[in-house]
Amino acid sequence: MPKMKAAIFVEPGRIVLDEKPIPDVGPLDALVRITMTTICGTDVHILKGEYPVPKGLTIGHEPVGVIEKLGSEVKGYWEGQRVVAGAITPSGHSNACLSGCWAQDGVGTAHGWKPIGGWKFGNTIDGCQAEYVRVPDAMANLAPIPDGLEDEQVLMCPDIMSTGFGGAESGGIRIGDAVAVFAQGPIGLCATAGAKLCGATTIIAVDKVPERLAAARRLGADHVIDFSSADPVQEIMRLTDGRGVDVAIEALGTQKTFESCLRVLRPGGTLSSLGVYSSDLTIPLDAFAAGLGDHRIVTTLCPGGKERMRRLMSVIASGRVDLRPMVTHRFKLDQIEQAYDLFANQRDGVLKVAITP
Amino acid sequence: MPKMKAAIFVEPGRIVLDEKPIPDVGPLDALVRITMTTICGTDVHILKGEYPVPKGLTIGHEPVGVIEKLGSEVKGYWEGQRVVAGAITPSGHSNACLSGCWAQDGVGTAHGWKPIGGWKFGNTIDGCQAEYVRVPDAMANLAPIPDGLEDEQVLMCPDIMSTGFGGAESGGIRIGDAVAVFAQGPIGLCATAGAKLCGATTIIAVDKVPERLAAARRLGADHVIDFSSADPVQEIMRLTDGRGVDVAIEALGTQKTFESCLRVLRPGGTLSSLGVYSSDLTIPLDAFAAGLGDHRIVTTLCPGGKERMRRLMSVIASGRVDLRPMVTHRFKLDQIEQAYDLFANQRDGVLKVAITP
Amino acid sequence: MPKMKAAIFVEPGRIVLDEKPIPDVGPLDALVRITMTTICGTDVHILKGEYPVPKGLTIGHEPVGVIEKLGSEVKGYWEGQRVVAGAITPSGHSNACLSGCWAQDGVGTAHGWKPIGGWKFGNTIDGCQAEYVRVPDAMANLAPIPDGLEDEQVLMCPDIMSTGFGGAESGGIRIGDAVAVFAQGPIGLCATAGAKLCGATTIIAVDKVPERLAAARRLGADHVIDFSSADPVQEIMRLTDGRGVDVAIEALGTQKTFESCLRVLRPGGTLSSLGVYSSDLTIPLDAFAAGLGDHRIVTTLCPGGKERMRRLMSVIASGRVDLRPMVTHRFKLDQIEQAYDLFANQRDGVLKVAITP
Amino acid sequence: MPKMKAAIFVEPGRIVLDEKPIPDVGPLDALVRITMTTICGTDVHILKGEYPVPKGLTIGHEPVGVIEKLGSEVKGYWEGQRVVAGAITPSGHSNACLSGCWAQDGVGTAHGWKPIGGWKFGNTIDGCQAEYVRVPDAMANLAPIPDGLEDEQVLMCPDIMSTGFGGAESGGIRIGDAVAVFAQGPIGLCATAGAKLCGATTIIAVDKVPERLAAARRLGADHVIDFSSADPVQEIMRLTDGRGVDVAIEALGTQKTFESCLRVLRPGGTLSSLGVYSSDLTIPLDAFAAGLGDHRIVTTLCPGGKERMRRLMSVIASGRVDLRPMVTHRFKLDQIEQAYDLFANQRDGVLKVAITP
Repeated sequence: MPKMKAAIFVEPGRIVLDEKPIPDVGPLDALVRITMTTICGTDVHILKGEYPVPKGLTIGHEPVGVIEKLGSEVKGYWEGQRVVAGAITPSGHSNACLSGCWAQDGVGTAHGWKPIGGWKFGNTIDGCQAEYVRVPDAMANLAPIPDGLEDEQVLMCPDIMSTGFGGAESGGIRIGDAVAVFAQGPIGLCATAGAKLCGATTIIAVDKVPERLAAARRLGADHVIDFSSADPVQEIMRLTDGRGVDVAIEALGTQKTFESCLRVLRPGGTLSSLGVYSSDLTIPLDAFAAGLGDHRIVTTLCPGGKERMRRLMSVIASGRVDLRPMVTHRFKLDQIEQAYDLFANQRDGVLKVAITP
Repeated sequence: MPKMKAAIFVEPGRIVLDEKPIPDVGPLDALVRITMTTICGTDVHILKGEYPVPKGLTIGHEPVGVIEKLGSEVKGYWEGQRVVAGAITPSGHSNACLSGCWAQDGVGTAHGWKPIGGWKFGNTIDGCQAEYVRVPDAMANLAPIPDGLEDEQVLMCPDIMSTGFGGAESGGIRIGDAVAVFAQGPIGLCATAGAKLCGATTIIAVDKVPERLAAARRLGADHVIDFSSADPVQEIMRLTDGRGVDVAIEALGTQKTFESCLRVLRPGGTLSSLGVYSSDLTIPLDAFAAGLGDHRIVTTLCPGGKERMRRLMSVIASGRVDLRPMVTHRFKLDQIEQAYDLFANQRDGVLKVAITP
Repeated sequence: MPKMKAAIFVEPGRIVLDEKPIPDVGPLDALVRITMTTICGTDVHILKGEYPVPKGLTIGHEPVGVIEKLGSEVKGYWEGQRVVAGAITPSGHSNACLSGCWAQDGVGTAHGWKPIGGWKFGNTIDGCQAEYVRVPDAMANLAPIPDGLEDEQVLMCPDIMSTGFGGAESGGIRIGDAVAVFAQGPIGLCATAGAKLCGATTIIAVDKVPERLAAARRLGADHVIDFSSADPVQEIMRLTDGRGVDVAIEALGTQKTFESCLRVLRPGGTLSSLGVYSSDLTIPLDAFAAGLGDHRIVTTLCPGGKERMRRLMSVIASGRVDLRPMVTHRFKLDQIEQAYDLFANQRDGVLKVAITP
Repeated sequence: MPKMKAAIFVEPGRIVLDEKPIPDVGPLDALVRITMTTICGTDVHILKGEYPVPKGLTIGHEPVGVIEKLGSEVKGYWEGQRVVAGAITPSGHSNACLSGCWAQDGVGTAHGWKPIGGWKFGNTIDGCQAEYVRVPDAMANLAPIPDGLEDEQVLMCPDIMSTGFGGAESGGIRIGDAVAVFAQGPIGLCATAGAKLCGATTIIAVDKVPERLAAARRLGADHVIDFSSADPVQEIMRLTDGRGVDVAIEALGTQKTFESCLRVLRPGGTLSSLGVYSSDLTIPLDAFAAGLGDHRIVTTLCPGGKERMRRLMSVIASGRVDLRPMVTHRFKLDQIEQAYDLFANQRDGVLKVAITP
């Protein structure tokens, strides 16, 4: 039984590179040889034991690679084809999927819905920080990489770009909107870029790291606010002449940013929440107009599936957005424990790392 | 200067019937002689001092009446015409109105938006628990009563029906949806009726008052849950085979009902909130899938304006819904202090009172 | 190789009952033993040679039955389970499906889209006017029949009800809308019922057959117009005080009805088209306000997939709508040629026939 | 009674500059001194007698100017303020307006709807190719020009930009869409720019004039097709790998372009029509998939009102789009007859003219 290297969750605090058998493929699966992957903030939650996964699981949900083997029932692809798959891999045939709610895919449940059920890689099945990954429901999930695009150009598509753009889309951003984006980590930066692509004309990015604020400007922010030196709520209200923004995007996952989003919304505005929270949230009565402000709060789990990947790669191919500058560090798979150390501790101005087996 | 009787807010705990001058009309106003009005739960908040209004203000925002006088610039109406106006009276010309966000009408502000700004009657201008009321922006707000409809048939249109139906509409209820409605007071009952009109096929109504649960059944509930004898969250999950509802409507304004709504939502579901809250709200982490459940929380302030009133009266005229049974008690305007006493204390099975000058 | 009876397209003018092998099932398929099916107007188009299908194909796309055999990869069902499948059987994994456009499923094409590609039964693969049918992509398409519902109660779900309701839904019908439905055949009657379920309060049904107009009244029409004795455009404009309807539903497939829909639309209204047309259509300049009327024309192919079927059966189970009266005649499969003769010639007041093997 | 110069429709073929009294203002009006305006293709239709208007009417519906005088009831503005008003000037208070359908404003009708009723300037009331214009419902229609923007920068906002962008918005363009825009006159160029602002990543512009195709590239087209040397339908199908576009925008008003739009749509796609047609349209059966392709056809009349103008000017102010290059020729009001001659005959590469009194 041939072996491969994989980053495995051992226990809270320990993700290690170890050997595992190369996965078999069932009739609907594909085996993909990973050519590039990355580490996500969620993986750090897993590392820290804040998000529980089974011991022994291979971590990672952002695969770029080459088809190594196709299940007997998989049609329309060929071995050797360059592909990405989304972090979320919907079956396509659950009741949730057939309702257009692919990320909450409840395949295997009696009624077809499961919270966060579309997220399988590195959560409920082995992930892609490895030499190979088994992709379930391959026909729903494998998206060919357009000719001319390199791995690093599409590395953000599976999760970061899909999630960040999803925040802009779910917020219903329209031409001429004012939008605030709280936190300019990888997801927030993509939300900023997504807001611009949706037609927002006053985009206000909030963070405290100068490199991130500079990146936000490059990706579309019209104004940046360093929250360590100015109160972002006051600043945003000033920039919008006291009206507030049409859409506020939360891209961190804290009470502080969630609440600030509410405080800068105009009446009838939308809070688009992307963060993974780790404690209960409070909605302040005043910021919520006692429930009478026609506010909306929407949450978005990273949209997946091959059509989503196709669309995102078309954004890259069109040159509308270039996310390569987000890759600040590069590692071999053999060095992945170092990569986790750097990324988890946010050292050296790291935004995203590229991992190549 | 001719006088009229009016229910006036004196101080917390005291709304009294007193005399006031009959209002003048400006060029865009109309003077309406009230033929029937009612008391709203919000008026009780005002009475108790929980929602502040200026001392001396006439209370009441649910007018049914006859046009007594038209401002010089008001066209398309005649004196003697029977009309209703919504609780919310948008100007039609603020930036909020021209964005389709009429209830947050910011007429008079620099940027055109104001939280809850469309609610003027009995809040920022004199209301309609009186013999006469001045209706601002009459051309945007006066809706003729169709022939054949009596005052009591349209009495719920200005607020209760518009708000309750609005909860169903904002929830995006579709044919075949499962919907839970928490609390079956007047607003909740109308939300139940609205859910049925939108095509929901599993409607679950929660309350503890037997008469209200019976009324809920008549208006469309397929299942009723008495929360004093069963846990509504468990019951709703059982009734939906563990899946949860597509839309949960909050019609009370408490943490308990808000939280229960979240707990019975399927992934990707919508919490449609109608309640007027009086303290901060908590979103429990687990019920919110840590922010990853594709949930939506939407709030709705009573939609107003004459087109909304026209539509609601067409619902009544078509016989789709009969809300007359909601009027359980009738009073003369002279007895309004008694009416407040009965209604504020929820005595004698009161749902809504009709007040006739 | 075991045989079964099946209604087979031989050549234009001839659909005959003949013997065929019982189909095999592939890994993702299910074999369903038909317990009830029906004939659709589209089948008559096929019979007449107006819609081309391969010679030798089994006709029929409205299956109600029992699972006889499951493919090796099909999970979550059991043999002996009562099920329906939609007329449209999306794969769930094409780009069209993953865009929410299941009826245009382009599985097998390079880009994943194909016009009308979701319609397979009796069109591109063998259909269900037979003792058995092979259901492709079974996990996306088999919907268990709720306990207590009989075959005849759910017989309209696969096509007629899904299409008719789809016309109301695609039209964006809202509470208080005025809606006209042109033609009250099976699809039109379901559009009328769907309009009511969506909250329309002025529903105007047009036909000339008294039984159909009577059925329209029972299913929700507030007004009926016999076009053989009155001009429906004039009547509808009169009934709407010269304004026109918010939504007009075309349920026949002719220039006359299509054009009449446009002529009764208010500015900004929506023409929801369900008909299968057999020649080019003309949009009259005046009825289209020269392109400046903010009109919308939307077309809807019968929505399919198991979640759609689940929702429609929940409508039946809730008692909101009873479509059994639409079945006016019953035949054994052995008599299907007689059934075609009756149905194709619209004799004896036939609306829909039930066929039982 | 003071006089002013105005371009007046005399009879088909003759628009002349003549003298007229400076208009009075009613309580809700404003008098605006025009500082810049332009000629629209619709004005040429009027000139040619193809679109009938009353003899003696002042033509023009694209005003940029300064408030000269305010009606007695107009609040929130000051004399001397720089403003634009949209080509469409909704009242804000008709049933159409209160339905969000401002362009079909039926103020003055019994039911509140009128086809194209929001277009008043140079159609049903005197327009703005004059020294002064009376703006009705001033509070709904006057939008202050942001500091720093010159007249020529905002000259496209009242009509061309609002219409062109409206075509992209009504088409429901989303991130990653493929979009074709047929005709690259001023409206089509703005539709191209709007498609980019909405996130389209494959924008294909069709025209035959090299300057217009070059302008299309600058405003966002990824591909341009000269229809005089290539078949645009074939080319677009090739560029989309045989799939077709998600949205096709018609920006000319002919059968040929309308039909080509249908022919390049993917199943489930949207034809967004902006053209003013002058004869009946034909929908070819095959391009329409016999009514079963889930196609949508939407038409858009230029959105108006001050909030729309505010949003469009924010697009300009943000630098997202620069439409100044569209002004190819400049004239004094005294020379407007020459300007009409140039523009109506499309001489000298004219795109838009600027007229300054």
